[in-house]
Amino acid sequence: MIDTTIIEAQNATREADLRRDYDALGEKLSRSGVDIDAMKERARGFSVAVPSWGTGTGGTRFARFPGKGEPATIFDRLDDCGVIHRLTDAAGSVSLHIPWDKAAPEDLLAKAEEQGLRFDAMNSNTFQDHAEMPLSFKFGSLSHTDAATRAQAVEHNLECIEIGTKLGSRALTVWIGDGANFPGQTHMGRQFERYLSSMKEIYKGLPDDWRLFSEHKMYEPAFYSTVVQDWGSSLLTAQELGDKAKCLVDLGHHAPNVNIEMIVSRLIHAGKLGGFHFNDSKYGDDDLDSGTIEPYRLFLVWNELVDAEGTPGLELSHMIDQSHNVTDPIESLMISAMEIQRAYVQASLVDRETLAGYQDENDALMASATLRAAFRTDVEPILQMARFEAGAAINPVLTYRASGYRARVASERPEVSGAGGGIV
Amino acid sequence: MIDTTIIEAQNATREADLRRDYDALGEKLSRSGVDIDAMKERARGFSVAVPSWGTGTGGTRFARFPGKGEPATIFDRLDDCGVIHRLTDAAGSVSLHIPWDKAAPEDLLAKAEEQGLRFDAMNSNTFQDHAEMPLSFKFGSLSHTDAATRAQAVEHNLECIEIGTKLGSRALTVWIGDGANFPGQTHMGRQFERYLSSMKEIYKGLPDDWRLFSEHKMYEPAFYSTVVQDWGSSLLTAQELGDKAKCLVDLGHHAPNVNIEMIVSRLIHAGKLGGFHFNDSKYGDDDLDSGTIEPYRLFLVWNELVDAEGTPGLELSHMIDQSHNVTDPIESLMISAMEIQRAYVQASLVDRETLAGYQDENDALMASATLRAAFRTDVEPILQMARFEAGAAINPVLTYRASGYRARVASERPEVSGAGGGIV
Amino acid sequence: MIDTTIIEAQNATREADLRRDYDALGEKLSRSGVDIDAMKERARGFSVAVPSWGTGTGGTRFARFPGKGEPATIFDRLDDCGVIHRLTDAAGSVSLHIPWDKAAPEDLLAKAEEQGLRFDAMNSNTFQDHAEMPLSFKFGSLSHTDAATRAQAVEHNLECIEIGTKLGSRALTVWIGDGANFPGQTHMGRQFERYLSSMKEIYKGLPDDWRLFSEHKMYEPAFYSTVVQDWGSSLLTAQELGDKAKCLVDLGHHAPNVNIEMIVSRLIHAGKLGGFHFNDSKYGDDDLDSGTIEPYRLFLVWNELVDAEGTPGLELSHMIDQSHNVTDPIESLMISAMEIQRAYVQASLVDRETLAGYQDENDALMASATLRAAFRTDVEPILQMARFEAGAAINPVLTYRASGYRARVASERPEVSGAGGGIV
Amino acid sequence: MIDTTIIEAQNATREADLRRDYDALGEKLSRSGVDIDAMKERARGFSVAVPSWGTGTGGTRFARFPGKGEPATIFDRLDDCGVIHRLTDAAGSVSLHIPWDKAAPEDLLAKAEEQGLRFDAMNSNTFQDHAEMPLSFKFGSLSHTDAATRAQAVEHNLECIEIGTKLGSRALTVWIGDGANFPGQTHMGRQFERYLSSMKEIYKGLPDDWRLFSEHKMYEPAFYSTVVQDWGSSLLTAQELGDKAKCLVDLGHHAPNVNIEMIVSRLIHAGKLGGFHFNDSKYGDDDLDSGTIEPYRLFLVWNELVDAEGTPGLELSHMIDQSHNVTDPIESLMISAMEIQRAYVQASLVDRETLAGYQDENDALMASATLRAAFRTDVEPILQMARFEAGAAINPVLTYRASGYRARVASERPEVSGAGGGIV
Repeated sequence: MIDTTIIEAQNATREADLRRDYDALGEKLSRSGVDIDAMKERARGFSVAVPSWGTGTGGTRFARFPGKGEPATIFDRLDDCGVIHRLTDAAGSVSLHIPWDKAAPEDLLAKAEEQGLRFDAMNSNTFQDHAEMPLSFKFGSLSHTDAATRAQAVEHNLECIEIGTKLGSRALTVWIGDGANFPGQTHMGRQFERYLSSMKEIYKGLPDDWRLFSEHKMYEPAFYSTVVQDWGSSLLTAQELGDKAKCLVDLGHHAPNVNIEMIVSRLIHAGKLGGFHFNDSKYGDDDLDSGTIEPYRLFLVWNELVDAEGTPGLELSHMIDQSHNVTDPIESLMISAMEIQRAYVQASLVDRETLAGYQDENDALMASATLRAAFRTDVEPILQMARFEAGAAINPVLTYRASGYRARVASERPEVSGAGGGIV
Repeated sequence: MIDTTIIEAQNATREADLRRDYDALGEKLSRSGVDIDAMKERARGFSVAVPSWGTGTGGTRFARFPGKGEPATIFDRLDDCGVIHRLTDAAGSVSLHIPWDKAAPEDLLAKAEEQGLRFDAMNSNTFQDHAEMPLSFKFGSLSHTDAATRAQAVEHNLECIEIGTKLGSRALTVWIGDGANFPGQTHMGRQFERYLSSMKEIYKGLPDDWRLFSEHKMYEPAFYSTVVQDWGSSLLTAQELGDKAKCLVDLGHHAPNVNIEMIVSRLIHAGKLGGFHFNDSKYGDDDLDSGTIEPYRLFLVWNELVDAEGTPGLELSHMIDQSHNVTDPIESLMISAMEIQRAYVQASLVDRETLAGYQDENDALMASATLRAAFRTDVEPILQMARFEAGAAINPVLTYRASGYRARVASERPEVSGAGGGIV
Repeated sequence: MIDTTIIEAQNATREADLRRDYDALGEKLSRSGVDIDAMKERARGFSVAVPSWGTGTGGTRFARFPGKGEPATIFDRLDDCGVIHRLTDAAGSVSLHIPWDKAAPEDLLAKAEEQGLRFDAMNSNTFQDHAEMPLSFKFGSLSHTDAATRAQAVEHNLECIEIGTKLGSRALTVWIGDGANFPGQTHMGRQFERYLSSMKEIYKGLPDDWRLFSEHKMYEPAFYSTVVQDWGSSLLTAQELGDKAKCLVDLGHHAPNVNIEMIVSRLIHAGKLGGFHFNDSKYGDDDLDSGTIEPYRLFLVWNELVDAEGTPGLELSHMIDQSHNVTDPIESLMISAMEIQRAYVQASLVDRETLAGYQDENDALMASATLRAAFRTDVEPILQMARFEAGAAINPVLTYRASGYRARVASERPEVSGAGGGIV
Repeated sequence: MIDTTIIEAQNATREADLRRDYDALGEKLSRSGVDIDAMKERARGFSVAVPSWGTGTGGTRFARFPGKGEPATIFDRLDDCGVIHRLTDAAGSVSLHIPWDKAAPEDLLAKAEEQGLRFDAMNSNTFQDHAEMPLSFKFGSLSHTDAATRAQAVEHNLECIEIGTKLGSRALTVWIGDGANFPGQTHMGRQFERYLSSMKEIYKGLPDDWRLFSEHKMYEPAFYSTVVQDWGSSLLTAQELGDKAKCLVDLGHHAPNVNIEMIVSRLIHAGKLGGFHFNDSKYGDDDLDSGTIEPYRLFLVWNELVDAEGTPGLELSHMIDQSHNVTDPIESLMISAMEIQRAYVQASLVDRETLAGYQDENDALMASATLRAAFRTDVEPILQMARFEAGAAINPVLTYRASGYRARVASERPEVSGAGGGIV
């Protein structure tokens, strides 16, 4: 959808500067024993999954303000994902959300192949009512007091697995909004037991080579209590289900001030870390673009992950999970993929042997300075060179804008009018 | 809409117990020199405004699950408000939201009179796009970078005043969602100046006997910065506008851990407290039913207000502002009006002379015990007797359920189907 | 230390009112099928442990302002604990802190017997340096990078067990301040492994009829990361140690907004709840008097505990853990014991069958109203009658003040001068 | 105290690399029209005040673990400050704290001159009791209920001004711990009025060319309410006092999630921003080294300040205010001065004209990318070159370590033993 000639023309204007910056950085890194080409290869090996629904403009309970050329179908969304990957070479897979993305599997596979994409973890949805389902999820789904409603929710998850197996997916992410808005509304212990019981039904239907991700969230849409409110509850869930069950950490689903990288470390210790939903936030589950609010926090998470590379059994699934309310979603997703990649490369620069030495000597000052030195290294030339060599864009956003893609799809896709959020 | 005979029949089953409880409490209070009848009169004098839109089921960005008999028009909503006031005698006014509640003023006045209601502060809406307005508020309203968009937002507020003058309202509440989702998106200083400039235009149009309420909110829908993010910014606004401008405190619009009653005290000191939006919350702006999460906090706010009674120039406007996602909104609003009334009466029980003595002596233990003693007094018989004597229901919720009102309107009003929130 | 005649004289002035209030409440409760005498018996059976060190005035890092008659030795502290229990009949045991409370076991036992006290859980201290220990805990204790320092910390904990066995204690509470002030200062995964390894050494030394409590704390004294920062880490610890290891929940050791009662519910589910450190707080680990800031939260915690009564294997250890900076510690501890007892009795009033019905029907409004109705019941007459019948004081604080105890010990104990905190 | 030959020898090993890095960065910046030498001059012009007491090891209420060579007198502390400035050329002034730093003014001036230092804002202390003062500040100081205690606190502040005038200081910073630990302990309105009344007494004694800084803090040492708890209260204070009164922002004194850079913007708008206390934090007022936890937040604060350069009447006073519990305080203060300087230079790189263009067009994505691009620029060569040209150290920490300064003073200064904090 983005013509190669456009990318090449755009890259041509930036190549010389890139080579100069890359060489200067390479020389500098070499003084600390770092091979820049090795870093570039790490960057090239990086990929994060894009959520199909993230290609549409998001909103809040107050309002949603759609942009031009909103994708109307999963095929539109896959086209947009294709653009993201084409320009960044860092987002080679897509995470589908059922029922929003339901379509004939063969058509989905064909479109994905056309766009050079794979299908990552499947996402079920029991936080909304589905037109074709007889029972409402207003008061819960997998943990509902009513057995039939729970069964309906289990069935939906099994269908997600079924769809996913046809698409080459190998994981199911379960996030539910079940909880309560008032003290006393639910019996929190029995509700958790009902949840676990439903999850066991789903787990039974999980193919041997699949994984099931349990995702916690502190609050919203439930505002007093949530069934899987923190990593402790997620851990209990994964422990009770079995080896194929892992915990998924969404960066925006925590209490204020919480040390997320420590949770990452604990889940690695427990053998239960399964993956991430990347985004950034300042207040609650703000779902802002990854790396735009607290970039050092993102780096510290990656510092744990790079450190843990090679841990037996550690296999991580990385996905973006954001809401784009005031930007072009394609641009935000490209920026986010690159910010995540940036943190990964920066974390890869940490001299772990030196760091371990400082840690052993309790040299807190030099240990923390070691991390900061890696973080403040401007690895942009590494990321640009990785893209350039892959045929992607040195500057994806400006290349995208130069391509006229958004205007083109705006002329092809149906216009969407603004709408209120859920508040009224 | 609720037949008097139903109320009387329900009350008859509870009157004897009420009289016994009222007498026992009266005897107990008399020992500390408190006249229970005087307290009952205070309870009878209490009234809080109901937000018209609160009568509909609310939602989150994830979903909205409507209930049965959702009000379809402002006249339906006023009927529901009438029920709330009829049963509780504690909610005699309604706060309208424009454009949601637009209708012929004479019809609104007629319906209000029929239901025994007055119109409290008007609420403008520039956080959503309006079908009839040419410009979008996606990137702001009163503080937008574009002068024409600001003018449109000013014009809308002036229209709200115009409508309000016809309805007997005497205040305009301005809350805007303007802000930014990313560092750098806006120049925070210039944005605030544009906001103030627009507010001055609105202020010019304010009748002499009106007040303008500036309402702050920490975040949402903007997730990085908000133009009027805290009481300090609201204070600056009210100071720059003039005497008729006051600050409105919404209990759910603060940072975690913030001492809201202290903000109340500071605004009283500054001569700028104008009123409240009551609700309760545990995490963010959860908009839960007043008094259901942290009842002692609600009491402490009222403790400041009762203490400040008689302060020259202090005239407060009290309104509920909540979202009812999992309950019958009429029931939640009745419960909330009564919980706010409860805190008011409890705060009225504080022996302020004794308290001041402990405070002067720095007897922290007895001072705080004095507040707790008032708070733990079960004033339910006072509230019940106030309602009973006013011809309202001793137990409004059970009386409402016995009345069959919801089923009746469900058969008359159009059915509404569930819907997603703003997220997709 | 408090003469019986003083208690009796004080009670005589309050007995008639108490009987009247007790009868009125009894009549009212009987209408909902609650037997007030049964509730009084529950109140009488209640006891919470007092921390020995809580009898001294606490401070902050900025300053400490001692009061008159500060206890100078553990025997003074036990005297003060005796007063608390004598007047409230709700605090029959003491939790010791080693090395602060080191003394000849036979002397401690004799003093405890004299005061009618037992010894509850032992507390070790590896967050301060001990004069008699060669190695510093500046950079950690049980998780220190240095094996000898870890061994020293383990040895100290084993000594605490040894002392405790002589005193009739049956539990050891381990709370450590180990962590880091800066990202990178420690390897969080290896630090946790060292911690677990040390804990296993301690666990080996635990008598069969003892329990080991793992206590988490989000932050302070470490300000970036803490080894046992949340209940998830505490759970992992207890799981790896074995059946005798349980999790202890301190109400003040959580992130802002966290739903603590839900954590309680989860730990009950996991079979790992061991007990509580009660206190209250508004901002961080404020260590304020129990029930003075958010009394409804305390009630909701007890609601979980009362609900879980009878759960196989559930045996809880309750202790107060507070710092008294501006009050007479004896008064604060009496107030706190009674506030905890109050929440326990209020939670006991919940009609659990009715509540379960509302929960099953998703009647959120009535379910939450059911909890609030129990909470707002003024159970003071029940608590007073329980004390009165036990020979304790109807009003412990006023009786204590009337007794002149503080002035008496102030004349006997050495004066302590004010002091700066740890800040300089 | 640090021999020039050591600095020169150390610099010699780093000069060649520095020149190469500086040139490469210069070339790169020139492409965006930035003159690196101009940036270097900005860096050279930067200076932040060091708090005298920060040169000693800090602690928490739990414990304090002193290091080797702790400064015993203000003259030791000035020596340490001299080292900091000598090596970084970024910390040319010292902020004194009375009574801790009391000494003969001529001796202080002589020592300062010897070390090339000036005296910045004076700090009073009424959060601790002073041996020579008859009245205790346990229950407050400037807002105490007792007039004599307030007078004592006022008098102390006037003495600080008097001392400061002799030392060439031109500002007084007033921070008080006054507040309450329990609801009801104080009448919050009257307490604030007493505070303002005392501040007016101090303000009367302020020389014409002095400024008075009002510093807010959300909590600690008071744990329920604090007299100047937020910037709104600080603003009211500065407004009521007069033109010479300004607000001082300590980065660690805010509620969780608060947007501090927005507060900066608002205070600039109000003409009341006076200066900063720099530090970093993750949970509360952690007082960690500046720029070590959320470096992007520090950058965003500086982004506001650089943007406001040239605002009439804006004159800012910058000071570090931290506690160093696990590091060598000299190293932490050097690191902090450089991290603050780094953020200042990074913020100076922002192309404000381009940014304003994106803001006007509501191009949120490019606007935020513009800030991030400046932030991720590794300006280390600029800072190093600024130091090098000033005769300071290219790498201050390693040069300091090479100098043997700490070991030398450790042999000269009295040893300090560890101590508990304020907790017991």
